[in-house]
Amino acid sequence: MLTGKNFIGNKLSSSGNVTFQTFNPELNKKNDQIFYEANNDEINQSLDLAKNAFEDYKKTTPNERSKFLNSIADEISFISDTLLEVYCSETGLPAGRSRGELKRTIGQLRSFADLVLDGSWVEASIDTAIPDREPIPKPDLRKMMIPLGPVVVFGASNFPLAYSTAGGDTASALAAGCPVIVKSHPMHAGTGEIVAHAIISAAKKNKMPDGVFSNLNSKGISVGVQLVKHPNVKAVGFTGSLKGGRSIYDLASKRDIPIPVFAEMGSTNPIIIMPNKIKNDYEDLAINFAKSITVGSGQFCTNPGMIISVNGDEMNRFIECLSSELKKIEPSCMLHPNIFNAYNLNANQITSNKDVEIYDQSNLINKENYPKHILSTVNSNVFIQNKNLHHEVFGPFSLIIKCNDMDDLKKVISSIQGQLTGTIIGEKDEISQNKDVIDLLGSRVGRIIFDDVPTGVDVCPSMLHGGPYPATTDSRFTAVGIHSIKRWVRPFSFQDFPDALLPDELKNNNPLKIKRTINGVIT
Amino acid sequence: MLTGKNFIGNKLSSSGNVTFQTFNPELNKKNDQIFYEANNDEINQSLDLAKNAFEDYKKTTPNERSKFLNSIADEISFISDTLLEVYCSETGLPAGRSRGELKRTIGQLRSFADLVLDGSWVEASIDTAIPDREPIPKPDLRKMMIPLGPVVVFGASNFPLAYSTAGGDTASALAAGCPVIVKSHPMHAGTGEIVAHAIISAAKKNKMPDGVFSNLNSKGISVGVQLVKHPNVKAVGFTGSLKGGRSIYDLASKRDIPIPVFAEMGSTNPIIIMPNKIKNDYEDLAINFAKSITVGSGQFCTNPGMIISVNGDEMNRFIECLSSELKKIEPSCMLHPNIFNAYNLNANQITSNKDVEIYDQSNLINKENYPKHILSTVNSNVFIQNKNLHHEVFGPFSLIIKCNDMDDLKKVISSIQGQLTGTIIGEKDEISQNKDVIDLLGSRVGRIIFDDVPTGVDVCPSMLHGGPYPATTDSRFTAVGIHSIKRWVRPFSFQDFPDALLPDELKNNNPLKIKRTINGVIT
Repeated sequence: MLTGKNFIGNKLSSSGNVTFQTFNPELNKKNDQIFYEANNDEINQSLDLAKNAFEDYKKTTPNERSKFLNSIADEISFISDTLLEVYCSETGLPAGRSRGELKRTIGQLRSFADLVLDGSWVEASIDTAIPDREPIPKPDLRKMMIPLGPVVVFGASNFPLAYSTAGGDTASALAAGCPVIVKSHPMHAGTGEIVAHAIISAAKKNKMPDGVFSNLNSKGISVGVQLVKHPNVKAVGFTGSLKGGRSIYDLASKRDIPIPVFAEMGSTNPIIIMPNKIKNDYEDLAINFAKSITVGSGQFCTNPGMIISVNGDEMNRFIECLSSELKKIEPSCMLHPNIFNAYNLNANQITSNKDVEIYDQSNLINKENYPKHILSTVNSNVFIQNKNLHHEVFGPFSLIIKCNDMDDLKKVISSIQGQLTGTIIGEKDEISQNKDVIDLLGSRVGRIIFDDVPTGVDVCPSMLHGGPYPATTDSRFTAVGIHSIKRWVRPFSFQDFPDALLPDELKNNNPLKIKRTINGVIT
Repeated sequence: MLTGKNFIGNKLSSSGNVTFQTFNPELNKKNDQIFYEANNDEINQSLDLAKNAFEDYKKTTPNERSKFLNSIADEISFISDTLLEVYCSETGLPAGRSRGELKRTIGQLRSFADLVLDGSWVEASIDTAIPDREPIPKPDLRKMMIPLGPVVVFGASNFPLAYSTAGGDTASALAAGCPVIVKSHPMHAGTGEIVAHAIISAAKKNKMPDGVFSNLNSKGISVGVQLVKHPNVKAVGFTGSLKGGRSIYDLASKRDIPIPVFAEMGSTNPIIIMPNKIKNDYEDLAINFAKSITVGSGQFCTNPGMIISVNGDEMNRFIECLSSELKKIEPSCMLHPNIFNAYNLNANQITSNKDVEIYDQSNLINKENYPKHILSTVNSNVFIQNKNLHHEVFGPFSLIIKCNDMDDLKKVISSIQGQLTGTIIGEKDEISQNKDVIDLLGSRVGRIIFDDVPTGVDVCPSMLHGGPYPATTDSRFTAVGIHSIKRWVRPFSFQDFPDALLPDELKNNNPLKIKRTINGVIT
């Protein structure tokens, strides 16, 4: 079923000369299929199509867009067996994970289909005229959100389905009325093509304009660079490394007309464990954190890469217990050799520091692409002074920071850069007595978690998956949940417009029956 | 009452060596008061104070912040006579305008005081736990908006009150919980000091932390540059030129940790007049547009700098009538000699083009700083090809673009860059038959106006004062109205937090009685 071609709008295309293959990390060998990187002509065609498609797509009714999104979900379900087979061959991830991620992807598409119909996301606001207001009459003003235009989505390495071709970025952008061009992740090109095929099928069945979606294969960075620099592109979604995200942000902000970039980048997701809790619950904590550090081979943006507590016998007992739990867990295959190599390199950059102690490097399966579980420790003063120890190590790695006392622990927190999450583990009374710890941690993260692990990002409206730089390039938006649609829209006002010429969302009789704020009152 | 000093938090300070004076454009001479530019020490002190103040200010209750904002409004009212006297001496604007702008400024402060109490701006969202959900339990998640941190506000030249020291940017940032450092406009340093004095009095009376507000004098650009680059600053508000706004945006995006910049820059606010309307109503249109072009000496960001219609006898009759109306209006004094000189220079850059015809340059008062009313015309093909003719001329200037027919008019619209407003003037039937004109215009502007003039920016929730680049650096936010608070906040999630440790906005019993969305239902 795979062709290795790009979808330039509805058309399969392979005009370029650059080819590449994906990799099966489990078998440690290349997959057979040859993929064709999009060449300049194909990139420009997709951009022209997207620009033209936007003129029609932005005028589609909520009902039409909702059906389109549900139809994408249906098409993906329909080809799920083939899809998951290719997914596993390109990721080394187990079948259970692939099914879970597929379910999440489909769930996201359907939740945006519901949101589009619900209409609350347009934030319709009406302030009616007051012709006899003094000193000047008040005009009729009506405001709603409208789509920004074509969006470029970079497929994520660690979520080949949920944050790639038809993932959260694409679903939210299509829901808003923005055409999407996906720059497919080179290591998941097959998974990407199958999902793209499903999207194009749904687009055709729903008579969406050609160009509402394109899927471009890429071997290196040039396809992405061209897309981000092109004037037809109005916003970018990215999930990946700090280096990659910052490069895209820099390109976008140097454009003649700068555009927003929503890059979800690195995070070490610090865990603070309070002294009484570590004393009372070290065994349970060790079991839970061993799981959280190793789940998905540590390849989650919310993986706990940093554990901070007050040094002493209790802390040492916890570390010993955590180490023994980590030893019990079989390593699992990483996504591809690049990630495996980067893991070893980055872990080594931290553990090779003379003041960092490698507590444990366990590996029950000594096989290529199967990483060691690495637990290392460092004293707080070394950690605070050496910013290199603050870098994310993407994989099953955790650095334990030993503090002298609670004041020292607060200094450690103050030294930490922006994060997606921060977790605080403690007895309720010792948390109440240390509200400043919560405050310090809160000012550095997007989500604060009490007495749980940071892995597992629930998809619901109150989820905030984002956080201060360098966790993301823009802490003001979430990448998960229905509010992620806010990334792709701008407010727009109509002044004194005849009712017949207003969009349905703002017409007097509210034909779409959506929630609106009229003269300050929600109706 | 004036001292010429900076407010470094609550303290008046003048340690620097660089001094300057403001200018009375009406009398065409410098005002007496000497002002002291903030030096490096003073800038850094204000930044340290702001950082520290944020830790306390973000914890103030909505009631406390609301009282503070109302208290600023009270203090400003209290000293309004002195304030307006200095305002007029630094702007050349008439007393009527000064009183109007003062009223607006006070109204904005009070509307944010109400908004803070109302609490809807925090967008409180609660999704309760589902412990028995399969395959994994659903955690309790609660989300709300929190302040970003210290904000730098650049005082505007054309709104010395409403978009400067205690203007919309400052009021919305203080409402959100962000300390503010104002870089005062050099030409309105006295007005700025008096308003700053009122803010500091209110801050002291309300026991706000020292550093919640600072006011820095500046002669050149160095104070602003230092502020924008400093790590303690978390966002910037600016109203002014494209060159100034873009420089600030570039500085901010090159920082180690980039920050959002909300720069409201240039706009020519195109007016489209449809053929039947110009035929039927040319006299009324000419009267209204002559007023709109000249009000406040054309020194409004929504001034109509471009009028577009289909060439012919009807259009010529309108132009003749507009010219004669412009002649009847006495020119009024511009804000300062820099603006007056820039007006003459920029108008000349357009009218010196061999294909641009100066229809009229009228000036009943031939006095320094009193500008000519300039009306010029150009054919559509010249306009489309020469992008220099698209630049804003800040002042009582309008370029009329003569199109061959409706198709040509659409090409002209397609050639126009991002704008704050677009206005469409037409008979209802000819608008209905030309919806594509609305569509083309809408895609380039933040607000579209039917059958009215673009000047006059009503302060209400449905107002959008913003628009695609280069009208602003970020089309996704408004600078006017209560929703402008959204510029200074970020969403933040609490997961599984004990009720007692949650902020009041998210506690189970909703002690603040604010609007919240609980499990998808607004309560």
